[in-house]
Amino acid sequence: MHITVKIGKIGKEEISKNYFSKMTKTKIALIQMKMSSETQKNMSSAIKKIKEASKKRAKIVCLPELFLSNYFCQKEKHSNFNLAEKIPGKTTKIFSSLAKELKIVIILPIFEKKTAGIYHNSLVVINEKGKIIGKYRKMHIPDDPQYYEKFYFTPGDLGFRSFKTNYGKVGTLICWDQWFPEAARLTSLQGAEILFYPTAIGWHPKEKKKFGKSQLNSWISIQRAHAIANGVYVAAVNRVGVERQGSKKLEFWGNTTVFDPSGNIIASAKQNEKVLICDIDFKKVENVRRHWPFFRDRRIDYYKGILSNPRDA
Amino acid sequence: MHITVKIGKIGKEEISKNYFSKMTKTKIALIQMKMSSETQKNMSSAIKKIKEASKKRAKIVCLPELFLSNYFCQKEKHSNFNLAEKIPGKTTKIFSSLAKELKIVIILPIFEKKTAGIYHNSLVVINEKGKIIGKYRKMHIPDDPQYYEKFYFTPGDLGFRSFKTNYGKVGTLICWDQWFPEAARLTSLQGAEILFYPTAIGWHPKEKKKFGKSQLNSWISIQRAHAIANGVYVAAVNRVGVERQGSKKLEFWGNTTVFDPSGNIIASAKQNEKVLICDIDFKKVENVRRHWPFFRDRRIDYYKGILSNPRDA
Repeated sequence: MHITVKIGKIGKEEISKNYFSKMTKTKIALIQMKMSSETQKNMSSAIKKIKEASKKRAKIVCLPELFLSNYFCQKEKHSNFNLAEKIPGKTTKIFSSLAKELKIVIILPIFEKKTAGIYHNSLVVINEKGKIIGKYRKMHIPDDPQYYEKFYFTPGDLGFRSFKTNYGKVGTLICWDQWFPEAARLTSLQGAEILFYPTAIGWHPKEKKKFGKSQLNSWISIQRAHAIANGVYVAAVNRVGVERQGSKKLEFWGNTTVFDPSGNIIASAKQNEKVLICDIDFKKVENVRRHWPFFRDRRIDYYKGILSNPRDA
Repeated sequence: MHITVKIGKIGKEEISKNYFSKMTKTKIALIQMKMSSETQKNMSSAIKKIKEASKKRAKIVCLPELFLSNYFCQKEKHSNFNLAEKIPGKTTKIFSSLAKELKIVIILPIFEKKTAGIYHNSLVVINEKGKIIGKYRKMHIPDDPQYYEKFYFTPGDLGFRSFKTNYGKVGTLICWDQWFPEAARLTSLQGAEILFYPTAIGWHPKEKKKFGKSQLNSWISIQRAHAIANGVYVAAVNRVGVERQGSKKLEFWGNTTVFDPSGNIIASAKQNEKVLICDIDFKKVENVRRHWPFFRDRRIDYYKGILSNPRDA
């Protein structure tokens, strides 16, 4: 049986647009930057670098965690809560205009004030029309000498999120979340094809010599594994620079990295400021999952124990 | 207030034994071996290597997946079901005697016949008295050209398991399980301080040149990440050798590896037969988890989505 379908010019375009073609590629930029104690300076620096990324044709740009300030969590100091702001607010307004002007998606970390005395380590996703299309509040909160985040941030209450944009489906997580396979899995199950991790991680100067290499290796390894286990791109963007708070200091280790869905490193920065640009090919997500079909074989009937803490030993 | 507790000689010994001292170290052996089509030959080879491991003072010895046969899953062939046996059965009897004789724990993979027409890819843990103290049935079953496991094995129905032995708390998983962060997490939450993965993984000769390095890297990376995410030792023991089935063949890649709870490789083999011995220090589990306390910060109130498959895209 032979079937001929006759279509006019408009019909052909329609078919070509909706049936055969699909957005399969994008370009992302990760802004690895150094922060100062001046909000205005950090803001200007971020805007300048986003413009640079846009000039290089990046369509999704991600800033590091808490990019508007020094990493104030080095100390527990009540006046630091003054740094927090509402969402939407003055910062989202500025970056919404910028996203619209440049026609790009911006992933924008914000120290968020929810209500009196309640704060979150958050981010918003702004689309290329300047609209806030999503918010994420850091779910896993660390607390370690000089990383006193439990003092500042209420653990997130919005769950794990993926957002559909015109440049791809993006999942958003923040820093400490990156050590939890559950976070990467849940975000990928929501549909994300790139996981973005705005981050602030570094060395305690006293530990660097003995443990520095192993710590950085672990950080790279765990993210590589999220890419492999979920067949997704993973993009982690860290700050750089040595930041002092009184007699204490931290050396932020940079090493902003992008992993492809097989876990290969496809872009990476060292320890200087850098606008890291990387091409993304969404066909690889399908292709990798087709060859290593882990999602096919999950035992969701036996995973209930994940909802519990470890057994008493 | 000053309190004096008077204790006699027996009292002192009692305190020293039960209060101050604790088993904190062990030695494990992973038997990386080459298999033939003759069960008897594989059995003899395994026994010989276990004796060698015991001479080197190993206390927990683990054999590779399906060590009594060639990797028969290269083909779908009904007569291969004849290789399956009951647990307990003739093989567990032999290795129970051996465990008792050598006073060691043996992790023994078995192609298990459950009932008429129902088979599992299983293992048992035998203690140093020769008693079977646990059984695990592979939960995640792969299926890939020349790895036709879904034809042979019913997915496990015993869940994720950890077993307390006199030489340490061991968790057992099998091969394809190693790609699932949920499996490592659930086994660790049960109390395991070493995760053992008897394995049969290799290259399709046609793919090796282009993808071989990346595949092996992924395999190492995902297991390293399980060690890091859970603060446990991870021990993967693979077979070696090229195995042919008609015109098809697979090259098993060896690379048996042990990771410490920080994800560092502390023992590894190449692609030849090897009894890989490794010292384990359980104090490291506590120490690593104390410094990177991921278990403290899990969001069990938001992990329910893990019990579902991915969303429709």
